[in-house]
Amino acid sequence: MKYFAGVDLGGSSAKIGLVDPSGNILKQDRVSINARSQFVNIMTLISHLLEELHNDTPGELAAIGIGAPGFIESQTGILLAGARNIPNLRGNSLTDFFKDKFNVPVFADNDATCAAAGELEFGIGKKYKNFVLLTLGTGIGGGLVLNGKVFRGSRGFAGEIGHVCLDPGGVWCNCGSRGCFEQYASAPAILRNYKEKCKKRGSRFPENISTKDIFQLAGKGEKCAEAAVEEAASAIARVLGICINLLNLEACIIGGGVSRAGDILLKPVTDKIDDFAWSHLRKDVEIHIAQLQNNAGLLGAAAQVLERLSI
Amino acid sequence: MKYFAGVDLGGSSAKIGLVDPSGNILKQDRVSINARSQFVNIMTLISHLLEELHNDTPGELAAIGIGAPGFIESQTGILLAGARNIPNLRGNSLTDFFKDKFNVPVFADNDATCAAAGELEFGIGKKYKNFVLLTLGTGIGGGLVLNGKVFRGSRGFAGEIGHVCLDPGGVWCNCGSRGCFEQYASAPAILRNYKEKCKKRGSRFPENISTKDIFQLAGKGEKCAEAAVEEAASAIARVLGICINLLNLEACIIGGGVSRAGDILLKPVTDKIDDFAWSHLRKDVEIHIAQLQNNAGLLGAAAQVLERLSI
Repeated sequence: MKYFAGVDLGGSSAKIGLVDPSGNILKQDRVSINARSQFVNIMTLISHLLEELHNDTPGELAAIGIGAPGFIESQTGILLAGARNIPNLRGNSLTDFFKDKFNVPVFADNDATCAAAGELEFGIGKKYKNFVLLTLGTGIGGGLVLNGKVFRGSRGFAGEIGHVCLDPGGVWCNCGSRGCFEQYASAPAILRNYKEKCKKRGSRFPENISTKDIFQLAGKGEKCAEAAVEEAASAIARVLGICINLLNLEACIIGGGVSRAGDILLKPVTDKIDDFAWSHLRKDVEIHIAQLQNNAGLLGAAAQVLERLSI
Repeated sequence: MKYFAGVDLGGSSAKIGLVDPSGNILKQDRVSINARSQFVNIMTLISHLLEELHNDTPGELAAIGIGAPGFIESQTGILLAGARNIPNLRGNSLTDFFKDKFNVPVFADNDATCAAAGELEFGIGKKYKNFVLLTLGTGIGGGLVLNGKVFRGSRGFAGEIGHVCLDPGGVWCNCGSRGCFEQYASAPAILRNYKEKCKKRGSRFPENISTKDIFQLAGKGEKCAEAAVEEAASAIARVLGICINLLNLEACIIGGGVSRAGDILLKPVTDKIDDFAWSHLRKDVEIHIAQLQNNAGLLGAAAQVLERLSI
């Protein structure tokens, strides 16, 4: 049996798994990454673990897919920028090391692009030929599937939805611009917005409150939490409306940690999209929470391989 | 020699031309359309004129391409909505009539999508595989070329850039939403904005002033005109920034009547895009005025045929 390796490079660790063509994880493990490690050391660590998993698993390792935060050039696998937590990845090809070592096709994509591939191959995206996927987490990423294929753009950087400008005079973003979508609907943005609302109303909140808690409070009708969720939903609906008008999509899929909120987020987003998309374009669009949740990163990294090789 | 027919259905007339594979117009003519004419009468009028042109021109009519305002379904050629000036086009297939009559492949696309095909086949877009084209006129349309092909979306409605929301509390748009891009950078919007500024400053302006005049005044340093052009340029830059972040483009092309302003529009747009797109995505993007100007509609209508048939 052929299987594929997925490598999900996160901020402080890498998840590695072997995935069959139907999206079943045959085996997986995780390794911590020291933020200051040299590039070669990080890659060696990951490849050793991958080799172990492979040796323990009967079948053929057909290809390797890597997902990482940041700007990854499609053709070369070079991580040009981003990946703030592991600066030594920058300027290096994530694919060359593994190609030399395993002698199989190796691909690398931005993690949100991988997530879109994951939904296309193994998730709710199977049903659609044109969709956008948002990953709402510490930051906001995006991936596009157009005409049944992952769309990467001219160099592989497509889907930088987190930095779509919603308000030219708005909150400063770490990208250097103002009013980026990320500043209104990422987990830290929802948290910040909630706390500001509480302070304004003079209501108290636990110092260590999480975004998850805020969604729970909103579900119980707590006013500041409701307002914070409502505002995030408006921002999400605006961005999805832009994508629908621009791309004539069949579906919008909301993923990332924030999407675990489920219906309490999905409902206001779905309601509000009508305000931001032409009715002719809106009416055919279905809005979903991503189907792949806990293993989205790993499955997405592997899925890009199936998508790129058209398996 | 093979040639292609282009039919550019406008608000009050249709331009019809025969175009060779290099984009030379061999012959062209125009026919007035009565807004209240029945669908069959409009089509008969156009097809008679097309037949005459064809009979006068040695060679083979290989295919027909039609461009029209509104929502045109790719597969059926049905104009579902839009084309406000010729309501009887709605609900009818623009392609079936010509297929039956001429027995050649016939395609229809929204006029802005045609304009993108025109630049791709015959214009500045030849140089690029990924670009967006804006048509700034009475309304605002858009067309996308992705991976070297015109992108039409799930039903053919992609590129509705004029209705991207720039301000949820902004000017009401005739689409039923608020703050659409069209309300800030179309010819009537620039005119409205200029007049408002003049009234605020108490400065006089000729009642019949045109958008073209405003660009000329801005070139001479007239303050209200400069401000109106500056605001339109900001809106254009924002929308192009969104497209760049989302689609990792190589170029943005500005077409339509407003684009005749040339550098007086192009320069502020080019300068301002930096505020709205990630630098990694921005730096590879070239901004141009459309190359096809006077015959953009006709050439675009014909170009879609070459693009669709991959000739």
